[in-house]
Amino acid sequence: MATGRDPKRSAALAPGAVIGIIGGGQLGRMTALAAARLGFRSHVFCPPGDAPATQVTDRATRAAYDDRAALDAFARAVDVVTFEFENIPHESVKLLADHVPVRPGWNVLRISQDRALEKSFIKGLGIATAPYAEITSPDALHTAARQIGLPGILKTSRFGYDGKGQQRLEPASDLDAAWRALNTEAAVLEAFVDFKCEISVIVARGLDGSEAHFDTVENRHVNHTLDTTIAPADPTIVPARVAREAERIADAIADGLDLVGLLAVEMFVTRDDRVLVNEIAPRPHNSGHWTIEAAETSQFEQHVRAVAGWPLGSPRRLADAEMKNLIGDEVRDWQHHAGAPGVKLHIYGKDAPRPGRKMGHITRLKPLSKRHLQSIVGSRW
Amino acid sequence: MATGRDPKRSAALAPGAVIGIIGGGQLGRMTALAAARLGFRSHVFCPPGDAPATQVTDRATRAAYDDRAALDAFARAVDVVTFEFENIPHESVKLLADHVPVRPGWNVLRISQDRALEKSFIKGLGIATAPYAEITSPDALHTAARQIGLPGILKTSRFGYDGKGQQRLEPASDLDAAWRALNTEAAVLEAFVDFKCEISVIVARGLDGSEAHFDTVENRHVNHTLDTTIAPADPTIVPARVAREAERIADAIADGLDLVGLLAVEMFVTRDDRVLVNEIAPRPHNSGHWTIEAAETSQFEQHVRAVAGWPLGSPRRLADAEMKNLIGDEVRDWQHHAGAPGVKLHIYGKDAPRPGRKMGHITRLKPLSKRHLQSIVGSRW
Repeated sequence: MATGRDPKRSAALAPGAVIGIIGGGQLGRMTALAAARLGFRSHVFCPPGDAPATQVTDRATRAAYDDRAALDAFARAVDVVTFEFENIPHESVKLLADHVPVRPGWNVLRISQDRALEKSFIKGLGIATAPYAEITSPDALHTAARQIGLPGILKTSRFGYDGKGQQRLEPASDLDAAWRALNTEAAVLEAFVDFKCEISVIVARGLDGSEAHFDTVENRHVNHTLDTTIAPADPTIVPARVAREAERIADAIADGLDLVGLLAVEMFVTRDDRVLVNEIAPRPHNSGHWTIEAAETSQFEQHVRAVAGWPLGSPRRLADAEMKNLIGDEVRDWQHHAGAPGVKLHIYGKDAPRPGRKMGHITRLKPLSKRHLQSIVGSRW
Repeated sequence: MATGRDPKRSAALAPGAVIGIIGGGQLGRMTALAAARLGFRSHVFCPPGDAPATQVTDRATRAAYDDRAALDAFARAVDVVTFEFENIPHESVKLLADHVPVRPGWNVLRISQDRALEKSFIKGLGIATAPYAEITSPDALHTAARQIGLPGILKTSRFGYDGKGQQRLEPASDLDAAWRALNTEAAVLEAFVDFKCEISVIVARGLDGSEAHFDTVENRHVNHTLDTTIAPADPTIVPARVAREAERIADAIADGLDLVGLLAVEMFVTRDDRVLVNEIAPRPHNSGHWTIEAAETSQFEQHVRAVAGWPLGSPRRLADAEMKNLIGDEVRDWQHHAGAPGVKLHIYGKDAPRPGRKMGHITRLKPLSKRHLQSIVGSRW
């Protein structure tokens, strides 16, 4: 054909098609549940074990992320591949892409796998991040510490999450010891930002380039792990102008990446109301769980719609909500939450409630504000 | 123990427990999806084939409903058994109940499997049905036709659904031929009710005897199959007093059955606003699909809560909604519905869109009425 367009780019997958999901955790589980509602089948690829996502589908491949034979068979068994876990090797993504559309594509994964690359990409879009420097040696760390100043946070460039692979450096810290403790070849030193709060925006981008973002939310962390999300962010803390700016930033990054799928953008709001990007993740995100009950389209359905080439759903918020993670032993309170009025309980199917492990979450729907109600009355949902 | 109480009766199943689901259709599928959200595993028991419910769990037994060995293994693999399909043999239920709690229990299934028994049970509670007579011979049919009058509807007592196993009799009909065509030993002749509309109420009853019903809805049928549900029923057609009476009837039947689980009660509203029970089903019901998006707790979560011994969730309606089944070829319009604003699309994972087959449904959320909004503002969801 001479149209210059790949016909696959505009074809929506029909119900009955198989969504391949790389990663077996709770994000994959909730993606598979959303896919099932739309009539899709899910085929989960993850390491051996009783993973949360494999419990909710009859199709799973349990193998290492670099098992070529398993990846090859998986690619031939699915109609599209997406991710709930983006840290898989380039060679694996390439092998998959030889057979089947991979959404988001390798360029997006490559950028979000590497903190230094991610930050320079975002800067290249004219979007602000916290001051940072790339570190590949103890000498570079000493230089950066002088230029950026301490306290700061030293983070491995790759494979860190939930506070793993990072440490805070104080002016009195032993930099050489810190570098050795990180045990990496590439890291980033980030200036400590004395922020007012942490926020995030989740944006979806479809095959046709259309975008839809959910409302800006506030995230509260405990022990470097997300504890609570407040949707929407309290306007007395995050003024409307700042929330709109955060949403503009998320839209711009998704466009800049030529993303097909979902992107979570974590940001700081400084005390003088500047918005600085902290990090991005090209997949459903913990800070979007509130959308399951409180948005017209959940982040998981939106993710499936985008990767299946469907039109995006409305991201409209239907209620104010607060999402609280159940971390480690907190899940033992399930019976209390199961009986609490107005609380929606989600449990992920993991066996042992180890410290720091995300076992489930609860979402509390809050009374609608009068202003929000007025915006709903008479309009179409 | 000498307390006289079975301790199992008050024990809530913990997340991770396995819900055994008899039946592999869309009701089982949506039950399994709701169970997964609460952290339960589902084990589906259904005849061989690629059934909708087996696609959304990693545990399934594919065998006949009277396969004793398969039933025995199933009973040992699950923590509770429930149904999305109630027409299974008594011996099978008994075999299951020897090993594991079965909810609802045999008495409820027995009554709802047999139209004649069901109607006499309901009458025994002092609740009105359409005039009817039990028919076990051509002579009995002639007698009943004289007493009840025609037109009327002749229905097999057992194993009928969606208009199968029933025919309308006119004053001029050949009763002997009709009896032979039905090919049954036991039937019921129901008087033709010149009703204003058909309504239903879905009520849940917990292990502790607590009850929670969803709002009365109006059902519109096409070719003896549910086509559209309007939630709530239009108060200009079904006055509030009549809707409350229907809900009282549903509560009373669930109590009378000592039900643990969900009960759908289909009723007629006569032109003089009397409520007559048509039939009951002790499971999630097509006329409750609107609750997935538009109630605080969906009928499927409510069913899981009841059979798991959890407290019931709030049945509160959060929005007005209209549910439309996608029957047969109607599912081919999926792409239209996928892009329609305000429409939530559900597809069940069935292969061939045969005529009359329920392939999926759509739920349209409607603007809240001002009165309903006022009832929400300031109150807790």
